[in-house]
Order: sequence, then structure tokens, then C-alpha cells
Amino acid sequence: MAGKYNICLDIGGTKVLGAIFDEEKKIIYRLKKKTKEGGDSKENIEELIISVVAEMIEESGIKKKDIHAISAGAPGVIDSADGIVLFSPNLPWRDYDIKTPIEKKFDVPFFIGNDVNVGVLGEYKYGIARGYHNVVGIFPGTGMGGGLILDDKLYTGHKFKGAELGHIVLEPEGPLCGCGQRGCLEALSSKQGMSAYIREQVARGRESMMADAVKDGVFKSKQLKKALAAKDPVTVEAVNRACHYLAIATGSMINIFSPDIVVYGGGVIEACGDIFLKKILKEVDRYCMPSIRSTVEIKCAELGDDSNIYGALAMIEDMEK
Amino acid sequence: MAGKYNICLDIGGTKVLGAIFDEEKKIIYRLKKKTKEGGDSKENIEELIISVVAEMIEESGIKKKDIHAISAGAPGVIDSADGIVLFSPNLPWRDYDIKTPIEKKFDVPFFIGNDVNVGVLGEYKYGIARGYHNVVGIFPGTGMGGGLILDDKLYTGHKFKGAELGHIVLEPEGPLCGCGQRGCLEALSSKQGMSAYIREQVARGRESMMADAVKDGVFKSKQLKKALAAKDPVTVEAVNRACHYLAIATGSMINIFSPDIVVYGGGVIEACGDIFLKKILKEVDRYCMPSIRSTVEIKCAELGDDSNIYGALAMIEDMEK
Repeated sequence: MAGKYNICLDIGGTKVLGAIFDEEKKIIYRLKKKTKEGGDSKENIEELIISVVAEMIEESGIKKKDIHAISAGAPGVIDSADGIVLFSPNLPWRDYDIKTPIEKKFDVPFFIGNDVNVGVLGEYKYGIARGYHNVVGIFPGTGMGGGLILDDKLYTGHKFKGAELGHIVLEPEGPLCGCGQRGCLEALSSKQGMSAYIREQVARGRESMMADAVKDGVFKSKQLKKALAAKDPVTVEAVNRACHYLAIATGSMINIFSPDIVVYGGGVIEACGDIFLKKILKEVDRYCMPSIRSTVEIKCAELGDDSNIYGALAMIEDMEK
Repeated sequence: MAGKYNICLDIGGTKVLGAIFDEEKKIIYRLKKKTKEGGDSKENIEELIISVVAEMIEESGIKKKDIHAISAGAPGVIDSADGIVLFSPNLPWRDYDIKTPIEKKFDVPFFIGNDVNVGVLGEYKYGIARGYHNVVGIFPGTGMGGGLILDDKLYTGHKFKGAELGHIVLEPEGPLCGCGQRGCLEALSSKQGMSAYIREQVARGRESMMADAVKDGVFKSKQLKKALAAKDPVTVEAVNRACHYLAIATGSMINIFSPDIVVYGGGVIEACGDIFLKKILKEVDRYCMPSIRSTVEIKCAELGDDSNIYGALAMIEDMEK
């Protein structure tokens, strides 16, 4: 191993989160940067990534030659073998080689993977799923991501397109999903799904303290937490409905995988995990076989906003095996 | 490798099918035996297996010392590591060690796995899924079995309980399934599901040439073929409904796994595969993401009744890797 520091990134549509890990896998430096207003062209995101890494190196005082690798999780379908973002709903990239410019700039290996895949890998290696062999990760956020660790290995399927757990169809004639299907788990249980439900109820004249929050898009997880604490009826309905479908999806995942653990993560869970988990646990037994259910743990992620950072670290280790 | 012959078995609720493979993996002898009337105690099935193997050895003229291993697929949840049938819907076994008596009797290694898992392994190694890395197998029969090859390895999950693809829930308030859930793929699209539908229609006064066939249980695949050829309206409805749900399930499997191929197999497909495949293909694109669908083949199994026999052979090879 050349250098002793690993730089790990969580790349989002509007921000880049960075952390430097030392040899003992402790975070010695952190940085978060937002994209400039309107600055979402592909070069700008690339520039942002480069500036975050460069600034972290400078501010932390580590030497460039002591860097071992850089690794990142990012939204979208990502060819981790070649470091190419094939498609991303939140980033302005399509078939975009992000590996070459980063490696050229910093002269160390760069790895990148789908953010939820990477997050689940983080929970498997360093979080709540430590020590398990088969892990199903379901991450409700604006969309609904999935990640699978099967027989101790990240499973991504043909051309890294698998683990789209948010797009299993639960209501064939249900609400339209961003992916073009109807009644996907994402359309029913993500922030988008819940926001649409609340928006519909407001449109038919009902009151909700989330009315403004969902008017032109999706609510923030913190707003959801607040509305749930205040027992806003329409919000509670939206969450009950989301959890009902999460329970069905979870039951099917249990029957399909007989996993050791199902992990819920992402922003919504980070904010309201206890409430969601309780509701899901109340229903899930109906939708899976008791003999399989009996050996499955169902838990919330443990690393919170850091699951991607830790997953990126785990990815470096995996890639170099 | 000690001996040069492998004896492979397909163990069913009422019959045992056997084949002897030579070194070139050619079948040199076959035998099929049915259980005696009422002879379904666990000892009787064990006796039947032993008598099939013994008779095959004797009749084929091979020497006992030239046998390398015996291997079998059987219905149920089977601990393939220890050769224990944990539970079987069609065999009178529970936590039953079938490995020890067989190995004792013939003094060679004995392997056993779930029949659909083994069948999918057979198709992967010797049938339609040759050369692919990720295979989803859906086998409609009396029940609905599933099998998964992921990253070139049979995936069985925690304690061999996984790949219950027949028990993903598609209609939470749908018909009761044998497993106790409602609206499973099995309850909707298996022989049981189709037979129940036909029975219900007959009960409400409609005519069907399948009325007698489903009166006290499930139709035979040959009867289904005949009724479809005659365009019996109620049967056509039952099959359309079954294929509708198979299409939804297949779509979700495609989104979950991004497999290289989905393979349909089992008795119903052996008899009416073309009809089923055509109907499923007509609908499946609605229920999966086009970007993932574009790299998935959807085909019927190729080995027919021999998929288990060939899968059992593949299992010997896998187990000895």
C-alpha cells in the first residue's frame, strides 16, 4: 500500500461531502461543499469534486504522496469497473468518464459506485450489518435506492444495473413513477411518493402543515419529522401508506433472499427511522414466510450521513482484493 | 476422481427419476419408479431412492466401485451442506437426514438440493442459460419454485431458505396461498392458482372443459395444453391472469437482479411454454426499466424433465470445487 490516507466522497446533486481516513480507519478531516448556484454542468461537478479533494489535502496538512486512493458514492447507474457514470437522475452526466480526470489530477486510483450500493457496503463493513453475509438495503430518499450484499459480496447484476429495489411493482395501476412505470415502491414510499400523496390531499381541500413543503416538489426529511411529531393527519396517512408498501416490499425481499438482515437507510430514515421501523415491523410478517422471517433482523442504518463515506472506504478495500 | 459414473436423481412426491452419467456426461442408463400406493412414509421414499439406485447399478452393468457420487434434487427447503431435508411440502420429511443412509448404503458421497434450485443450476450449466452469469429461474408447477444463479454461483441465502420467488406478494388482499400469505405469485400463477380460478368460475355456473380436472385438486399440464388448444374460455382466462402476474413478477425480478436471462421451466412450461412465454413477453416491458430490460433474455428451459438430472450432475461438480 503506497499511501496511508484514503479520501472518501459522497457526491450528491447539490453537494460533495468528503472525509480523509487514516491507516486506522479514523476520520481525520472532513469537508462539505455545495455546488454554486446554477452550477450543475458536468464540468462544474467535476471541478467541485476536485476542489473538495484539493482543499482537504491542503487544509488537513497531509502530503499528496501519502494518499493511497480516492473513492466515492454518487447517484445513478455507475460502471464501477471503469469509473463511468452511465446515467444519473441527479447529476448532469451520461456515459461520463469521471475516473480519468480525477486520477490524472491526483495521480492515485479513483473508485466510484452507486451511492446506495456504496452506503449498504458501508453498513455491511462498518455499520449495523457488520458480520452478516446477506444484506438487503432499502434507502428511501427523494427516490428509493437499494443495495444488496449476497454471500459477502456487493451484488450489482449485469452492467451494474441491478438492485433497483425501489422499482419493484407493487400496484400495477398505481401512481406513475419517475422511471415511467406505475406503482413502483419508489412512487409509493419515497419522499416523492409521500409528497405526491400530501399534495393530492391538499388539492382536494384538506389541510396539512406540509402543504407549502410539497407545493413545488418534495418535503425535507426534517419537515417530515416535525409534521409527524405534530401528528399532522395527512402526513401521518402518507407515512402509513409508505410504510404499508415498504412492509410488502420488505416481505418479498425476505422471501427472495432469506437475508440475514434488512437495513433501512437514507435521509428519511435518518430523520424518522424509529417511526418508520415500528410501522413496518407491525405489518411485515404478513408478507413473508415465518420460517424465513425467523432468521432475519430488520434494522435502521447506523452510520447515518456517513454510510457513503465508509462505504467508499470499503470499496477501496474490495477493489484491491 | 474415484469412480467414473455419477448417479443423478429427481425425487418427487410420487416418483423417483434416475440417470447414470458417464465420464463424458452422457446419460447411459435411465430409470423411473413410482411410489407404491399409500407408500409415502419417509422410510418408503428412502427405500424407493435406494431401490432406484440399486436397480440402476444392476441393470446398467456398471460396477459399484466405479460410482463417483450420487446427487439429487427434491422439493422443499434442503440444507445442501449437510444433506438434510428441513421441510418439504410434498415429501413426508422434516429435519430428515437423507444423506447418511444413502452414503452408508452405497459408500459414495451423496448430495441433495432443492429441486428448482437444482433445475436452474442444470439450465445454467447444461441448458438454455449456458454462458450467462446471472440467472433468474421461475418454475410454475403445482407450486411455484424459484432459483437464482448470481455471479456464477447458486444463491440460496441464509440456511438455504432463499429464492422463494413464488412467494413474493403481488396482491396483498389476493387469494390465499398454501404458504399462508395472500396474493403470492404462487397463489395467482401456479397450477394451484389457475385451478382455483377455474374452479371458482365453474362454481358460479360457467362451463369449462377443465371442470372435472380441477374438481378435487389441480389439473395436469397435459390437460391444460388440451384445453388451451381448444380455446376453452375459462381456461384461457386463467392462463391470461397467470401470465399477467408472471409478467409483473418477472419485471420486478429484472429490476432487482439485472440478470442476463430469466428462464421459465417446470411442468406447465414444458407443456405450454410457447403460449406462456408469448403472453408474458407482451406485458413484461411495462413492469421493468427499459435500460435494464434491454440486456435481459427471457426464455423457456431447454432440458425439460431432465433439468433436475443435469442440475444434480452440476451440483456434484460444484460441491467438489
